[in-house]
Amino acid sequence: MASRGVPCVLRRARVPTLRCLVRPLSIPNATLAVAAATRTFTTTSAVGADATKKQVKFTSDAYPNIKRNPNFAQVTAEDVKFFKDLLGAESAVIDGVTADAADDIEPFNSDWMRKYRGHTTLVLKPQNKEEVSKILKYCNERKLAVVPQGGNTGLVGGSVPVFDEIVLNTSRMNKIRSFDERSGVLVADAGVILEVADQYLAEREHLFPLDLGAKGSCHIGGNVATNAGGLRLLRYGSLHGTVLGLEAVLPDGTIVDALSTLRKNNTGYDLKQLFIGSEGTLGIITGVSILCPSRPKAVNVAYFGLESYDQALQAFSAARGRLSEILSAFELMDGRTQQLVHQVSGKKKPVEGDYPFYCLVETSGSDGEHDMAKLESFLEYIMGEGIVADGVLAQDETQFQTIWSWREGITESLSHLGGTYKYDVSIPLPELYQVVEDCRERLTKLGFVGDDDSFPVHSVVGYGHMGDSNMHLNVAVRQYNKDVEKAIEPWVYEWIQKRNGSISAEHGLGVAKKEFIGYSQNETMVKLMKQLKNLYDPNGIMNPYKYI
Amino acid sequence: MASRGVPCVLRRARVPTLRCLVRPLSIPNATLAVAAATRTFTTTSAVGADATKKQVKFTSDAYPNIKRNPNFAQVTAEDVKFFKDLLGAESAVIDGVTADAADDIEPFNSDWMRKYRGHTTLVLKPQNKEEVSKILKYCNERKLAVVPQGGNTGLVGGSVPVFDEIVLNTSRMNKIRSFDERSGVLVADAGVILEVADQYLAEREHLFPLDLGAKGSCHIGGNVATNAGGLRLLRYGSLHGTVLGLEAVLPDGTIVDALSTLRKNNTGYDLKQLFIGSEGTLGIITGVSILCPSRPKAVNVAYFGLESYDQALQAFSAARGRLSEILSAFELMDGRTQQLVHQVSGKKKPVEGDYPFYCLVETSGSDGEHDMAKLESFLEYIMGEGIVADGVLAQDETQFQTIWSWREGITESLSHLGGTYKYDVSIPLPELYQVVEDCRERLTKLGFVGDDDSFPVHSVVGYGHMGDSNMHLNVAVRQYNKDVEKAIEPWVYEWIQKRNGSISAEHGLGVAKKEFIGYSQNETMVKLMKQLKNLYDPNGIMNPYKYI
Repeated sequence: MASRGVPCVLRRARVPTLRCLVRPLSIPNATLAVAAATRTFTTTSAVGADATKKQVKFTSDAYPNIKRNPNFAQVTAEDVKFFKDLLGAESAVIDGVTADAADDIEPFNSDWMRKYRGHTTLVLKPQNKEEVSKILKYCNERKLAVVPQGGNTGLVGGSVPVFDEIVLNTSRMNKIRSFDERSGVLVADAGVILEVADQYLAEREHLFPLDLGAKGSCHIGGNVATNAGGLRLLRYGSLHGTVLGLEAVLPDGTIVDALSTLRKNNTGYDLKQLFIGSEGTLGIITGVSILCPSRPKAVNVAYFGLESYDQALQAFSAARGRLSEILSAFELMDGRTQQLVHQVSGKKKPVEGDYPFYCLVETSGSDGEHDMAKLESFLEYIMGEGIVADGVLAQDETQFQTIWSWREGITESLSHLGGTYKYDVSIPLPELYQVVEDCRERLTKLGFVGDDDSFPVHSVVGYGHMGDSNMHLNVAVRQYNKDVEKAIEPWVYEWIQKRNGSISAEHGLGVAKKEFIGYSQNETMVKLMKQLKNLYDPNGIMNPYKYI
Repeated sequence: MASRGVPCVLRRARVPTLRCLVRPLSIPNATLAVAAATRTFTTTSAVGADATKKQVKFTSDAYPNIKRNPNFAQVTAEDVKFFKDLLGAESAVIDGVTADAADDIEPFNSDWMRKYRGHTTLVLKPQNKEEVSKILKYCNERKLAVVPQGGNTGLVGGSVPVFDEIVLNTSRMNKIRSFDERSGVLVADAGVILEVADQYLAEREHLFPLDLGAKGSCHIGGNVATNAGGLRLLRYGSLHGTVLGLEAVLPDGTIVDALSTLRKNNTGYDLKQLFIGSEGTLGIITGVSILCPSRPKAVNVAYFGLESYDQALQAFSAARGRLSEILSAFELMDGRTQQLVHQVSGKKKPVEGDYPFYCLVETSGSDGEHDMAKLESFLEYIMGEGIVADGVLAQDETQFQTIWSWREGITESLSHLGGTYKYDVSIPLPELYQVVEDCRERLTKLGFVGDDDSFPVHSVVGYGHMGDSNMHLNVAVRQYNKDVEKAIEPWVYEWIQKRNGSISAEHGLGVAKKEFIGYSQNETMVKLMKQLKNLYDPNGIMNPYKYI
């Protein structure tokens, strides 16, 4: 039997010894804690290369084609007075025009990646839907543009201004309104931090059906507005299914009170769905009602090496069939990403030797022994069939965290190389990894890829949520390089378009992907979207210059 | 050990003998087959009482307040010629004006409950989206009203005409387009029958994530258009979460091609969501892409008697926590419904004695032994804690079917009493059954309820999907009675409105509930819905006189 602290190694020849692994983990919160602690964020375009600069470039300079809409008014002293009178508390209004406030306002103008930066001079922090309604009504009448902002953890520049849009920050709407333990329905303000909501639920043996790296900062209203995907989608489904109701304010100040707590309600169009993933362009979400599952009592994780992507496909099929209701993550990492993590962290690899692919499988269930038995049976099958070459199974929480770090540590390891062009894409499963192969081949043929500093590209790697058909294609560069960028874009978008994939699986459009929507949506769809935007926001004041 | 064919009886004193029950059932298709075979349909208002009449009353007579919209054109011989030229095949057009066709057209004019009947003279059966597009474009220009019709199994009169609307039937769009076993994504025409789709999936070890009694007739396009709930919602979630893409045609003929097979695609508003539950008022769904789970390898069922609704609440909480990922149904039946089934069927009751409440718990999972162990542990707990008084656990497929028949047989048993006023409502869980108690008390106080034929009301009973907070309130009457109806409506809707419930949990609005939407949606929501309807269907030709 493996001693605690050392993951039990599984090899084909040792399949019979799998029985030694019956040691269920009972770490209800482990996944979440690990995830929050180790996960970091990156996005499209060269991340990291510019991160050391003192000042972030203005988005208006980085995207010179975006022009300020001259129909929008500029904030005046009277406007500021109106908002101060309305919101009362000093802390509810940050007026960037005054000298002191200029520093205070900077965090609301820039994103955490230091990639987007706006020119706002006014931040408003309303406390409830009525205040939001009065703000938007006033802004709509005055034609003042508004950027809704939650935890400002987005990846596409959607939550900071481009020009002088007013920032409407949801941080002071931060109350959990109700929770019904019998049905699992949570009702909370939009500005509640995801981790706070999940901790609240943990104390009540429930789980927020969404998990992502930014959970310590992001707001649940922002999660809904961006239709965040994250780690639990494979198991608990998308927010379109779990969100039961929303409270939101339209640009003209209309309060949309659709905060139902019912699982079934077939009385008319399900309007709340439009707000899910609308990135603040139709209005501002002020409250969320969401169905939360029972918290799993056991979480287990296994990690293994494979000789080909086809074997990864076979392993995933086996996991769906054999782990079925307890499967909670199926992640794919290519060999180069794991080599990188090894080089940067200096840690011993979980399995000996080098494989072109690695998978991480997580289970979450209500009975540790049952879950471990299923996981063993799955591993016996994939090893017995020769699908998997070598693998390990976590025996305790430390090992659980160690194994996850080989998936979670990729982003940080990449950042040590310089910059990274990152693409978060959905592709039908059979060709999920092909985009990485093709991109590597293309950049290699063009002479960009090499081992020494004379080559701009260090590596072309891929990893991601295989269970959701979601691949992160990463091109690690020694420095930001326009020629490399031109060789990737729009080639990669065309590649995805041909496969009916999505150019933005979970990060959204924002500023970064606005101009590329045509690669994932046809003209009719874009036309219908613009029609809808115009219906709800005829003055276009909500989060302008972004989305569609 | 219980012999096969006799459900094993569990009583508080006999909890230790639960171990004898470790006999997992491996009947992947059992639930579905049983369900399809035994379930029957009913709806609001007196069902059954009028069912023996030879001719169904015209909806236009039953609802004299509904007037034909004079803006709509009437079908002419030229119109019929246009459609015959367009659709080609003789069977694609039924022209009710000719003498022979009058009989052929009747099934398309009336619903299966014999409760709604229209006056159409034209049925069209296009084979693909292009034909649907040409039909709608023509109808929109000519201002000819259209009723989309799938399997015509609806419960609120939504799928048959009120006046002379053209019926656009989807039965000839009946091809399964693709299925990817690795991801579980099915793409199929809207007119594929639900059971056909599920059988196709069963052969591939997958499951359609929706199940309902009409599965042998209903079309998956109609299921999506009405956001059908059914039996698997507790486990697999709503269609808003499982439908990945739609292909639909707008009233002006625009083809909306959003038939994505991706789980994650954050590129713009999720417009397909508007069609889910729109009851054919925004356009016609022609294709569906849906995520299908692995088919469970084991299905088990238990049935028990309880002394109070509060104990049913406790049992449900315990089921959510202890059965968690394998819980697939939690049904509530009050004592009177079970007494009725006993009287009508003459069958021996599953448990001895009489209880005010009974629950049925079903599990579906990938490992029969594990599932049975969890179910046992759950039953030990609820019996040990005194939550449940008496219970049985199915030991084979026959018992499985027998136990389900005590839930499924309620509708038929009620129909033997005369008519039934039926209300399909959602109410927050704590008060779910209170509506039945209060209704019974009200009708009793008014002198309507009694044991002999001088009283119009025989029984006021309740049963339903407790796991979804979905109650079926049924008032069984000896004959249709206007005074009784007036005593129930709008009282029952007001009761539900006060609890923020839904007056239509899963059946939709159609003709039956159109005028009551205000009890579940506020004025703002209704206004926004009408705005949306007007945006997509300015001439109002799609399924008029219904919905909102």
